Amino acid sequence: MTNSVDIQKVSDVLLANNNILILCHKNPDGDTLGSACALMHGLKSKGKQCAIMCHDAIPLKYNFMKPELYSEKFIPDFIVAADVASLQLFGDKTLPYSEDVDLCIDHHASNSNYAKMVCCDETMPATAQLMFLILETMQVKITPIIANCLYTGIVTDTGCFKYSSTTPQTLIAGSKLLEYGAEHTIITTKFFMSKSRKTIELEKYALNNLEFLYNGRCALVTLAKDILDEIKPEPDDVDGVSALPRTIDGVDIGVTIRQISAVAFKISIRTSENADACDIAQGLGGGGHKRAAGCEVIGSLESAKKAILKEVEKSLCR
Amino acid sequence: MTNSVDIQKVSDVLLANNNILILCHKNPDGDTLGSACALMHGLKSKGKQCAIMCHDAIPLKYNFMKPELYSEKFIPDFIVAADVASLQLFGDKTLPYSEDVDLCIDHHASNSNYAKMVCCDETMPATAQLMFLILETMQVKITPIIANCLYTGIVTDTGCFKYSSTTPQTLIAGSKLLEYGAEHTIITTKFFMSKSRKTIELEKYALNNLEFLYNGRCALVTLAKDILDEIKPEPDDVDGVSALPRTIDGVDIGVTIRQISAVAFKISIRTSENADACDIAQGLGGGGHKRAAGCEVIGSLESAKKAILKEVEKSLCR
Repeated sequence: MTNSVDIQKVSDVLLANNNILILCHKNPDGDTLGSACALMHGLKSKGKQCAIMCHDAIPLKYNFMKPELYSEKFIPDFIVAADVASLQLFGDKTLPYSEDVDLCIDHHASNSNYAKMVCCDETMPATAQLMFLILETMQVKITPIIANCLYTGIVTDTGCFKYSSTTPQTLIAGSKLLEYGAEHTIITTKFFMSKSRKTIELEKYALNNLEFLYNGRCALVTLAKDILDEIKPEPDDVDGVSALPRTIDGVDIGVTIRQISAVAFKISIRTSENADACDIAQGLGGGGHKRAAGCEVIGSLESAKKAILKEVEKSLCR
Repeated sequence: MTNSVDIQKVSDVLLANNNILILCHKNPDGDTLGSACALMHGLKSKGKQCAIMCHDAIPLKYNFMKPELYSEKFIPDFIVAADVASLQLFGDKTLPYSEDVDLCIDHHASNSNYAKMVCCDETMPATAQLMFLILETMQVKITPIIANCLYTGIVTDTGCFKYSSTTPQTLIAGSKLLEYGAEHTIITTKFFMSKSRKTIELEKYALNNLEFLYNGRCALVTLAKDILDEIKPEPDDVDGVSALPRTIDGVDIGVTIRQISAVAFKISIRTSENADACDIAQGLGGGGHKRAAGCEVIGSLESAKKAILKEVEKSLCR
């Protein structure tokens, strides 16, 4: 990309501005919020004015990051996006700022290059790992709260160092952040060792309704509207359940069909190295990554199931 | 302990011997096997004869560690125990060697000091992290297979760097082992991202039979003999289920009662920082750690349940 900038340049431009707005992606997760909040605290320590903006409300569990949210009084002279791969991921509430991003800091290979400057390192499993390098280059003192933000970004995007994207540098970054005061136990307990009652209810339903197809190579869960209305899960709960079918031994393709209205279904696809989730999703107009992808289909539950299983079958026959 | 030895001394005595038998604890896990196999490969690279001995058969999933098992032809002149905290943890099949251990390498605070020399570092979350230092001190070349053994020991004993026992040094050790060729994705997929059909069946049963007591502060699962005979779970599967009740939000004490015969029950207790699992288990003659402990009781399922709930209630009233 011709507008690609290195970490030194990122450090220089950030330090050259004074009123910096930081945008997160919608449905905010630990990495977009951790990266944004770490940058906010870092810039404030350098005497800058900063605010964070997100299409959605920030879930309470991220309160410890102490995000200072945008208000209309704030007049930005520089706009940064943290962990946002494309314009569609901002959501309407960040308009018109999201159409005028000066600098995008990201780690997604699919970054659509919408910003004036882009610092995107796809070898990193989390934007927070890149943000750590940027803050070090800016000579920001890594306080315990900054360490907590960055550590949360890294552990949430790597499944606590579990995913294949984890590198030796990721573990070193984690180690340094612990030395800087990141609260390991509080963070890992919050994100990896606790489940809400709703999650438990949803998992129970999923396990009771799991279907094995194609000699156990595909496992499918259907979450119809009645059960979702009954349990009222949070988005996080549903994400957890979407990951479940693929984890079962022998399953190459895990499918979760979630009813979002009388005639609309969101389908989440997770695959082992023996199948391509993105290929399957693209067959129904969706997209995503090789191991995790998704699509939306209109029709009845029966037709949605038939449509996705046709794609699954194609994939298994390849 | 007066028979406590440092890493340099461990290195010296190991290099001074030639036929070394390495003992694991019964119901072997990733840490006892990873530590033992890493030591075995390391010593063999230094020209030593080595064999590994364990009361139980080594589960197939550890085959990649390539343990060379003891046969009667092997005459040891030095006996090492890896990750074995007390004599009871050996199991009968390692007799009489287990009563004559020259050196114990361990990380359990509860180490009972049964060996002639003990190198025990309870600040380490896994014996494998200590074994890594020992192998480095012995100037063993860390080959990919040794790295795999040590990495497995560390990740299995820390829940993939998730537990509170994880330190900055643990992450650095992990990072170095990846550089030495440990196969991160293969190991984390095997141990953290796959579940057997039996595990799924057992989890389903547990979720369907979960009881919440004391205003949701205690969650209890009962695994009666009929369901265990039906599902025939592996020990690992049961461990996973034992961890489940405590992970639910608001639960301070998670209890799993497993029937092991018509009149005997194994009770596993997991607690949050608001309760002491070891205290609860000791009330019924058991023991363990603050967050995870266990005991066995004789009687009927009803009386077992009544007995443990009495201890739970005491703990919650403290």
